Amino acid sequence: MELNHSFPTTAASLGPFFHPRSIAVLGASSDPAKIGGRPLRYLQMARYEGRILPINPERATVQGLPAYRDISNVEGEVDLAIVAVPAKAVPNAVRACVEKGAKAAIIFSAGFAEAGVEGERLQTELTNTAAGKIRLLGPNCLGTISTGNGVYATFASSIVDELPTKGRFSLASQSGALGAHCMVLALDRGLGINMWGTTGNQVDVDISDFLEYMVDDADTDVVLACLEGVRNPQRMIGAFERARRNRKPVVLLKVGRSEVGAAAVASHTASLAGSDAVFDAVLREHHVHRARSLDELFDVAYACSFGRYPKSRRTGLLTVSGGGGILMADVAEEARLDVAPMPEAAQAEMKALLPFAGTRNPVDVTAQVINQPEIVEPMFNSLLRDGGYDSGLAFFAYVGRAEAMMNTMTAGLENVGRANPEKFLAISALTTPAIRTKFEKAGFAVFEDPSRAVFATAALARFHESFESVDNSAAEPVHSGRSEIDLERGRTLSEHESRIAMRAAGLPVVPEHLVGSSSEAANAARQVGFPVVMKIVSRDIQHKSEIGGVILDVADENATAAAFGTLMERARAAAPAAHIDGVLVSPMIKGGVEMILGISRDAVFGPIVMVGLGGIFVEVFKDVAFGKAPLDIRQARAMLRGLKGHALLKGARGRPRADEEALLQAMVVLSDFAATHADIIDSIDINPLLVLPEGSGVVALDALVTTLPQRQAQ
Amino acid sequence: MELNHSFPTTAASLGPFFHPRSIAVLGASSDPAKIGGRPLRYLQMARYEGRILPINPERATVQGLPAYRDISNVEGEVDLAIVAVPAKAVPNAVRACVEKGAKAAIIFSAGFAEAGVEGERLQTELTNTAAGKIRLLGPNCLGTISTGNGVYATFASSIVDELPTKGRFSLASQSGALGAHCMVLALDRGLGINMWGTTGNQVDVDISDFLEYMVDDADTDVVLACLEGVRNPQRMIGAFERARRNRKPVVLLKVGRSEVGAAAVASHTASLAGSDAVFDAVLREHHVHRARSLDELFDVAYACSFGRYPKSRRTGLLTVSGGGGILMADVAEEARLDVAPMPEAAQAEMKALLPFAGTRNPVDVTAQVINQPEIVEPMFNSLLRDGGYDSGLAFFAYVGRAEAMMNTMTAGLENVGRANPEKFLAISALTTPAIRTKFEKAGFAVFEDPSRAVFATAALARFHESFESVDNSAAEPVHSGRSEIDLERGRTLSEHESRIAMRAAGLPVVPEHLVGSSSEAANAARQVGFPVVMKIVSRDIQHKSEIGGVILDVADENATAAAFGTLMERARAAAPAAHIDGVLVSPMIKGGVEMILGISRDAVFGPIVMVGLGGIFVEVFKDVAFGKAPLDIRQARAMLRGLKGHALLKGARGRPRADEEALLQAMVVLSDFAATHADIIDSIDINPLLVLPEGSGVVALDALVTTLPQRQAQ
Repeated sequence: MELNHSFPTTAASLGPFFHPRSIAVLGASSDPAKIGGRPLRYLQMARYEGRILPINPERATVQGLPAYRDISNVEGEVDLAIVAVPAKAVPNAVRACVEKGAKAAIIFSAGFAEAGVEGERLQTELTNTAAGKIRLLGPNCLGTISTGNGVYATFASSIVDELPTKGRFSLASQSGALGAHCMVLALDRGLGINMWGTTGNQVDVDISDFLEYMVDDADTDVVLACLEGVRNPQRMIGAFERARRNRKPVVLLKVGRSEVGAAAVASHTASLAGSDAVFDAVLREHHVHRARSLDELFDVAYACSFGRYPKSRRTGLLTVSGGGGILMADVAEEARLDVAPMPEAAQAEMKALLPFAGTRNPVDVTAQVINQPEIVEPMFNSLLRDGGYDSGLAFFAYVGRAEAMMNTMTAGLENVGRANPEKFLAISALTTPAIRTKFEKAGFAVFEDPSRAVFATAALARFHESFESVDNSAAEPVHSGRSEIDLERGRTLSEHESRIAMRAAGLPVVPEHLVGSSSEAANAARQVGFPVVMKIVSRDIQHKSEIGGVILDVADENATAAAFGTLMERARAAAPAAHIDGVLVSPMIKGGVEMILGISRDAVFGPIVMVGLGGIFVEVFKDVAFGKAPLDIRQARAMLRGLKGHALLKGARGRPRADEEALLQAMVVLSDFAATHADIIDSIDINPLLVLPEGSGVVALDALVTTLPQRQAQ
Repeated sequence: MELNHSFPTTAASLGPFFHPRSIAVLGASSDPAKIGGRPLRYLQMARYEGRILPINPERATVQGLPAYRDISNVEGEVDLAIVAVPAKAVPNAVRACVEKGAKAAIIFSAGFAEAGVEGERLQTELTNTAAGKIRLLGPNCLGTISTGNGVYATFASSIVDELPTKGRFSLASQSGALGAHCMVLALDRGLGINMWGTTGNQVDVDISDFLEYMVDDADTDVVLACLEGVRNPQRMIGAFERARRNRKPVVLLKVGRSEVGAAAVASHTASLAGSDAVFDAVLREHHVHRARSLDELFDVAYACSFGRYPKSRRTGLLTVSGGGGILMADVAEEARLDVAPMPEAAQAEMKALLPFAGTRNPVDVTAQVINQPEIVEPMFNSLLRDGGYDSGLAFFAYVGRAEAMMNTMTAGLENVGRANPEKFLAISALTTPAIRTKFEKAGFAVFEDPSRAVFATAALARFHESFESVDNSAAEPVHSGRSEIDLERGRTLSEHESRIAMRAAGLPVVPEHLVGSSSEAANAARQVGFPVVMKIVSRDIQHKSEIGGVILDVADENATAAAFGTLMERARAAAPAAHIDGVLVSPMIKGGVEMILGISRDAVFGPIVMVGLGGIFVEVFKDVAFGKAPLDIRQARAMLRGLKGHALLKGARGRPRADEEALLQAMVVLSDFAATHADIIDSIDINPLLVLPEGSGVVALDALVTTLPQRQAQ
């Protein structure tokens, strides 16, 4: 669907959703439990200091506030209008907002594109009414919150008697219900909220807009997001990169990973889910933590709240239970943390403190801690100091419920926290609420489950790596310019034309000659060099090899001439009526690693590079990596390293090392070509691409380029 | 270490640990917080009805109970003795227990094998004192509990003011601290405990003993286990299989999966961890749910507590939030549940009830539920009835905190629970404790996190499959008897002898002839059939192919004679001083799928069959499956199906289907040979084993058998 409207895309225009000086509520209700009543109640609970302007043609006051018949009656400016009227009345309400000069409107009402044909029509009308005149949030959304200034432009039923705690987390959610659920989860975890916004049907403002706004907000340290699809991938990626530069972690839950899930997304919000593997690759590339569950989303968010990002993956483990320590070590290895052992000398010092202790790492203080809770401080300090770990995790099992013992221990833990202000510290224990608070005040994140503590630690270490790896000098990839060859939408390229296109794009393609006689064949073979491969060419013969239409390893001129005759005979025998174009002669290239390299189109991210080892690797193991075009060398390298079969390029099984640099170059060149011609190319399939031994380059043996269908006249 | 003692292994002899009529406490303390004081306190708290016999030479009464100077002074029988004296005094204390005729003893004391050389000596003394005379639990353990009769033979500090709830879960843990932690987790989750036992250093009673006892206990429905190593694999497997036959799920957490973890296990309890991949394979084979975290252990345990094991993987999802429903669908696909859509007609009926609803599956009742909580009952009933699902999961987000609304809804949910007594039902929601209890009483398991609800559902469905797949007719695998070939420990087998051994074992091995002249070569080739492969044989030439010492595809007698000469020349040229044994002639076998098949020894489970696709599959992808020898056909088949590369046997990429039945037969035959000769064979490596097209069998091209070193004289 090509939309014929436009909204501004500057972050500044989103200000009125979070910092309005006045809020009008169209459809304001006296019932504080109704959709049109809730925001009035919340705004008053939150002591919002701007003007609250209930619009209700039938009442002089609503919930104790003077009401207006119509938004046009309001004196002074309206920054934000909340629209809580039936769907059919929404376009007129928005028109009135535009006429009043309101800067932004939130449409709570449902019954639009998510609700069938009539709803779709209404949504189009709404869009046309608003486009370019007002920023629009929704419809079918739960609105926004900005706790710092009491803005509760929402009817979220998750707020009952308690407003969210103020804090430095901001959350953007496409789904209103999940967004509201996350608000409660944040409250449960003690995470304070700064901004909160839900986008619903996203006729204008979408998740990318909110992310852009939040990552640059001075009062936001951590950004959380829940989404189903991506509408504006370039801007979302831009927001991810700004977040990294600002050293703000982004933790994201995207649903619709599965086939059933993706189908449900499509029917639920009419968003394109795109390929999940591609989305995954994009998030990895931009260092966003993708949570697979709500628990994980909030485990990582909670860990971020301590603002201590470990400077390395080296982690020290302390435990009161041998089994618990081993469990943490297992998970640490799985999470790719480094459970390096303590230096021998430091171990000896620990043994002097506590003779029964395990001192390697995990450090096991044993049940002795029950008799000697004061031992934890020197042991933990020694672990962190002498082990050189950048994070420290302790498993205290159920001992955290024993208040008296814990009071002794927490005094020591406070010292540990103070002595290690830059290290991420966590305790896994069952606790009482009071003990939990004490641990947290001492600077320790508290997790009941030790595995979850370990996984969250690993996530923080990755964020640190991400912040440190920002390369401000990274130039935009250089485009090689439009291809001079004849590429247009709707025009099918033959194999031969595909090869020409690839060669023009800068990819080494094996030379081949189409010949019509024995002598031409011999000439061509001499030209490309022996031995050669010869193939029959006929659009009427699909599976050449089945009829013996391919002859390999033809050694000299005589053999070439003979092979020409054999191929023609076989073709005539197998398909007497076939039109024969001739025979292709190309050099026989031996050795090298067979790869496939291709371009496909993702519904969200456009041209995507796919690379994998050829044959069974792709077909049986699905061992492929994706990356958004265009790629730079660094991105291409990361893709190759992600392949399970990468070892084969490195020369596994006594093979020569393959020319990986040439492969990277080919990936970059192809990705650049695909990005430059993104409006024409549908897919490219280079299979196989032979990666020859180091220094010998790569060569494409086959290529097929398909183009997009012609544009329909509007 | 060969132990020269023996203990009985009958389950009945474990009775006194859980059902003693009298309990003596050696080292009984007046201080109820001390190790020797806690059991007296707990036994009295639990109103244990048997005799409690404190043994203390210095006091007439201990914690209000009449005390004895010495266990010999006790009148009448002592069923169970608790020994809580310093490690050095333990052997004498146990001797006194034996003399008194006590049936069982629990050693709380630490300071044995886990604590260095002197501790090891003490442990040996303890073992020798007890062997054959008394059942021994520990040392270095937390003892046992049997809630039904008030037996608290433990000093677990996890019991403070509250005893564990009585119930139908039994738990065996090697680690005392993890066992105690699990006791608290069970209490937190409302799971009642029947028996609880920790095994510590396991000089006699081990985890396998407790599992055997628990799976046959009439008051136990679900068995949980935490362990670090396996000492008695055969009996543990026997217990798993009895559990299955008794339709009792076993949920197990084994730590020491990782390299660091396994090293920590070795130093912590001196248990052999064995290979984790092998342990994993054994658990899968015997349908034990292996939890990867404590959360998962208790998620599955809690789900089991409802006793509703879904009869199929078909699951119906209901949600108040589109996003939440999609999230559940994603996880369901990952967990291999079947989120099949509702029939069209039933969807239409649902639409009639709630026009905005999503009705496919997930069924989305939308936020409308807030206004119309009574809608949940008919929607949920229709889902379960018309969709034919055997489990039903609902996501109510934070709505479960709204008590008033929930009271309406729970009335409906009670009806749903009653109408579907055999289906597993779960609700994912944030709730108040009161609402949670109401949901549970209505028959719904309650999980805060929707992903965890889905994973637990999948675990229950697998348990149902496991219970149903018990094959009572399964005979013991038939052993083919000892090999008649010359196999003995410490004797190295050459390649040639290895082949003979494999042929004797019943495995098809490619024939080969060692020849010393051109004419012998031609004769041999005629005998095995053309074309042939010829290889130089010399112990002085390691890498035959590098000197051109292998010639493939030799077509006829003349070529054979010539090749013989060529090989001899090349060998002489490359290594003039080499001793040449001759030339091997074997048939050239083309086609087929290259596999590797082998035997290795696991420290715990003994001979293990390993199978995988050859070459890069093994080396790069580590795509191999393990199974304990001997295997039956069914087990062998499950192994093959577990291979990612299995599709290649099925004829991927246009290849012919491979002779999988012959491969299965080869696996069974080899496994049988390895099991029969487990006392001699160290490893077998058949690489490659060619699996020929269907009907053509398999053939081993190479084999290498290694034997165990000779036994040292004691």
